[in-house]
Amino acid sequence: MSLFKRPALADCVPELVATARGARPASLVIRGGTLVNVVSGEMIPGMSVAVQGSRIAYVGKDVSHTIGPETIIIEAEGRYIAPGLLDGHCHIESTQLTVTEFAKAVLPLGVTGGFFDAHEISNVLGLKGLRLMLEEARTTPMAAYMQVASCVPSTNAELETTGAAFGPEEVAEALSWGPDMIGLGEVMNFPGVVYGEETMIGEIQATLRAGKVADGHFTWASDDWRLPVYAASGITGDHECVTPEDVAERIRLGMYAKMRQGSAWHDVAETIKACTEMGLDTRRMMLVTDDRSSESLLKEGHMNFVVRHAIGQGVKPVTAFQMATINTAERFGVARDIGSVTPGSIADIILLDGRLADVRVSATIAAGRLVAENGKMIAAWDGFTYPEEALNTVHIDRTIHAADFALQAPVHAGETEARVIKVTENHVETKEVKMIVPVEAGKVVTGPGKDLCKIAVFERHKGTGNSSVALVTGIGFTEPAAIAMTVAHDSHNLLVIGNDDEMMARAANQVISMKGGSVVISASGEAVMPLPIAGLMSPAPFAEVAEQSEGISTALQRAGCMLNNAFMTLSLLSLAVIPEIRLSDKGLVAIGADGIHMVPLFTAELKEKV
Amino acid sequence: MSLFKRPALADCVPELVATARGARPASLVIRGGTLVNVVSGEMIPGMSVAVQGSRIAYVGKDVSHTIGPETIIIEAEGRYIAPGLLDGHCHIESTQLTVTEFAKAVLPLGVTGGFFDAHEISNVLGLKGLRLMLEEARTTPMAAYMQVASCVPSTNAELETTGAAFGPEEVAEALSWGPDMIGLGEVMNFPGVVYGEETMIGEIQATLRAGKVADGHFTWASDDWRLPVYAASGITGDHECVTPEDVAERIRLGMYAKMRQGSAWHDVAETIKACTEMGLDTRRMMLVTDDRSSESLLKEGHMNFVVRHAIGQGVKPVTAFQMATINTAERFGVARDIGSVTPGSIADIILLDGRLADVRVSATIAAGRLVAENGKMIAAWDGFTYPEEALNTVHIDRTIHAADFALQAPVHAGETEARVIKVTENHVETKEVKMIVPVEAGKVVTGPGKDLCKIAVFERHKGTGNSSVALVTGIGFTEPAAIAMTVAHDSHNLLVIGNDDEMMARAANQVISMKGGSVVISASGEAVMPLPIAGLMSPAPFAEVAEQSEGISTALQRAGCMLNNAFMTLSLLSLAVIPEIRLSDKGLVAIGADGIHMVPLFTAELKEKV
Repeated sequence: MSLFKRPALADCVPELVATARGARPASLVIRGGTLVNVVSGEMIPGMSVAVQGSRIAYVGKDVSHTIGPETIIIEAEGRYIAPGLLDGHCHIESTQLTVTEFAKAVLPLGVTGGFFDAHEISNVLGLKGLRLMLEEARTTPMAAYMQVASCVPSTNAELETTGAAFGPEEVAEALSWGPDMIGLGEVMNFPGVVYGEETMIGEIQATLRAGKVADGHFTWASDDWRLPVYAASGITGDHECVTPEDVAERIRLGMYAKMRQGSAWHDVAETIKACTEMGLDTRRMMLVTDDRSSESLLKEGHMNFVVRHAIGQGVKPVTAFQMATINTAERFGVARDIGSVTPGSIADIILLDGRLADVRVSATIAAGRLVAENGKMIAAWDGFTYPEEALNTVHIDRTIHAADFALQAPVHAGETEARVIKVTENHVETKEVKMIVPVEAGKVVTGPGKDLCKIAVFERHKGTGNSSVALVTGIGFTEPAAIAMTVAHDSHNLLVIGNDDEMMARAANQVISMKGGSVVISASGEAVMPLPIAGLMSPAPFAEVAEQSEGISTALQRAGCMLNNAFMTLSLLSLAVIPEIRLSDKGLVAIGADGIHMVPLFTAELKEKV
Repeated sequence: MSLFKRPALADCVPELVATARGARPASLVIRGGTLVNVVSGEMIPGMSVAVQGSRIAYVGKDVSHTIGPETIIIEAEGRYIAPGLLDGHCHIESTQLTVTEFAKAVLPLGVTGGFFDAHEISNVLGLKGLRLMLEEARTTPMAAYMQVASCVPSTNAELETTGAAFGPEEVAEALSWGPDMIGLGEVMNFPGVVYGEETMIGEIQATLRAGKVADGHFTWASDDWRLPVYAASGITGDHECVTPEDVAERIRLGMYAKMRQGSAWHDVAETIKACTEMGLDTRRMMLVTDDRSSESLLKEGHMNFVVRHAIGQGVKPVTAFQMATINTAERFGVARDIGSVTPGSIADIILLDGRLADVRVSATIAAGRLVAENGKMIAAWDGFTYPEEALNTVHIDRTIHAADFALQAPVHAGETEARVIKVTENHVETKEVKMIVPVEAGKVVTGPGKDLCKIAVFERHKGTGNSSVALVTGIGFTEPAAIAMTVAHDSHNLLVIGNDDEMMARAANQVISMKGGSVVISASGEAVMPLPIAGLMSPAPFAEVAEQSEGISTALQRAGCMLNNAFMTLSLLSLAVIPEIRLSDKGLVAIGADGIHMVPLFTAELKEKV
């Protein structure tokens, strides 16, 4: 049982009322701050808060009647008192941290809760993986709600191989684990929903029957006639917004629009115009991170950074706070528990210094206890140990050779046209480009001279031996270089990218030998980040992981890859549900308005077929 | 089973998605109107809606792909398309109509749903009464959600006698009857909550454990230090707002503030300033009626009137619509089902002519079917029959005599000071005034000359024989007159008011003989309104009841009582939970900041005691 209990409100009512009327001393009091009231949309100076156990008992100008000899008193001294920030859509695995270390990283930043889609570990370890993360989450001070991943696999077994497969039964089972299993994770197989695929529809039905909400992921244009079809399925939230119109169309259809500021996708500057320029009702606008790296947690922050950034775009501070507190809580039906500083709510409270617009968090109270101060954790709790099974998930029992990366061209020598994946910096989409590529001795040639790399995926879950090789541009390597990684959305097979077959093989073998993680090898040197938990996460402390992550970034930059958050961007090159083109262990996959399907690498092959 | 089914969304997903993508023809289409989008806060012209069964399948510019040969097409011809209006707090019994006739009265006015606290019938018939109204509600086309009354009795058995008593067990039982049992009705015993009374706290706990919401009723000043104590109990809605500050303080504490425009209490003009002058976030503001008479339904309307009135105070039309649609649905956790015109929602839709600000409803669609057009019901359904037990609830088996109204004074002749109930027109509060009243032969004298009447309450539930007599001013009778009624909040004993003991006795006996209702007798004539269902409601059609209700009003006016909505105002003179002073079957009850307690009629008695 966690040190940080969050009992149901019903069980706390007698003690809260007794505390509020002064019949029982408060456990904690925060005295004399300016309340950021996200319910009324006001700043109210001279306010104090009395807490009993994990919940708020009283909010008012005077809480002296609740103070007893044992009451801990925090003097706000005019600081802002705000509800703890909530992340309305986040994959913790993207930080490469355990939930424990993630909590230690974000609590000092004022983030007291989140809605986490443990989609990555589910693709590797199935329900067992989800359950492990849920149990770990319950030991932390955070209001950590988990979603059951809807798309395991993100597409289907024809298009990619994963470590597990979820259907309506798995969804129903996971949602029965407790009230902190909050809903269905992003339904990325949106064509499946629109065209009535039984598994997808069944998962949504199972979610609604459990009284929970379903999140979306729709990447066709927002003026596509099929967005309302998707909305008719009962899906009520979506973070795949890149334009203000994307936000507007979702809200008009009754959905919550999540505006994302991940490490590698910077959508808020555009999407926030739905508020700042279009003037739409903001109650269904949310700020979220989706995926952030441990490095960006260290350098930029988490939701504190996102809220500050939104304010920087011209959003009124209290409105931006609403987008990361009450709106988020309302979306998930838990506004009675979190998202505001009001009597009865859980005492997840932050104190902020200076201008509110700077979002400078100086203290974090979670579940009624002061857990962080001045940027440092001050609370400690027992860690969580992952079982052996979760540490042995890279099932490739052979050595990979340079020859595994050979790419047989349809011509013997000269040139041929190929379908190449083009990376788009700071955006989750890729572009499909047709490029003329050089061929020697029947094989495509890459190298540091041109911005063309090979990309390969090796299946690592079931020992099928599946592998595929294709081409990618936009990486920027200026010297012989390769990166291998078992973080490769969403099926998390072994992904290898490089312009030198030997280096690619070496990097791949090193990742296999350390049971998951990432390795960069180039003429300038090497970098290593071991990720033994499901091949996705490190048991190491936050600072160490961030350092390793920075090591990977630096090694990529030295080799010429100057992409912002390169690791995260590259790890998505295998994500078969986001336009326009990706690589799975089965081959090249194109995602367009007509659905998702395999496409040949060489356009000549296509012409032959026609 | 009702003709108007409202199946769960989960069960409709496959057919909704199929309809939306054009694979199955819509049952109904509304074509070419301006959508009042209460989610985004916009007016969007050129919009159409496709419906499948009871729910909305598609909302967009073009629904032609959903139209089949059997699809019913309604041409909006540029009219506004808005979600049906919702009443966020209403006692149907106050109309004296059955739920069936209430539905027929309000559906043509654009009201498609409500959150009904069957508090009155519960005080007479207990859970049996609530269950009867729920079952009747289920036969109508409305989204009729019921609350379980929290305060039966509104105070306690020391202060008044009711026909039933509810505690946590009754609350838990009622809330288990189905998803249309939506929560706990207004917790009027707010001192009980604040001071930790076990029954009140237990009822709130039972409600929260059932995953439902609890409504409030707090009449101490909004700057009283105990409002946050009340909020700490988990109560999250309150309609006892009469000033903008009342609204603001509730919202600041995380509650929904309900702004009331009943027949006899006109609070919106003041309370709406929380929006129009204070500029608070409006998402937790709701418009409600609380109590409206059948006459005012006929003459003014229902929520259509309230929304129009709010707009008239300077609220942006779409914001006023939000206060009667999405805000209300969100408050009760049913925004996925009702409160907006969005895919997946139940097709409760209204069309409006002319200016939106005029709220002129020309068609009402409920649960996917056109039920009213141009102010008339066009849908019919089987009625509901109340069992014999519900028609025999006036248990007074003796004749009442003029002598029963004698008021023994503490002096034999001359004058004495008495505590008199002063009626306040258009407000739910009364005032306590000390008046010097004339005494003859040891008895207080009333008569048409002075604005002083007797008021009496006869217990009618359990045959206890309890009765009490006191004094009231502000009625305005200018001739000998009396009114008797079994509608007498909240315990609904037999209430008699008049300045002539003989007439009072006659009116009382006539009400007893017709098993409930109201009778006015004066020098100018008589009026009768039989209310045999629990002594509260008439089985007669809406128009007939409205006519009888008007008959009562006219008779009162002829006798000199010019109070606006006199019947409703008088019926509250026995409501022992609203300041400042009322009469129950046990005697005079004073309600102040120190709680509720019995007080003597004559101040001399008090002095003797001291």
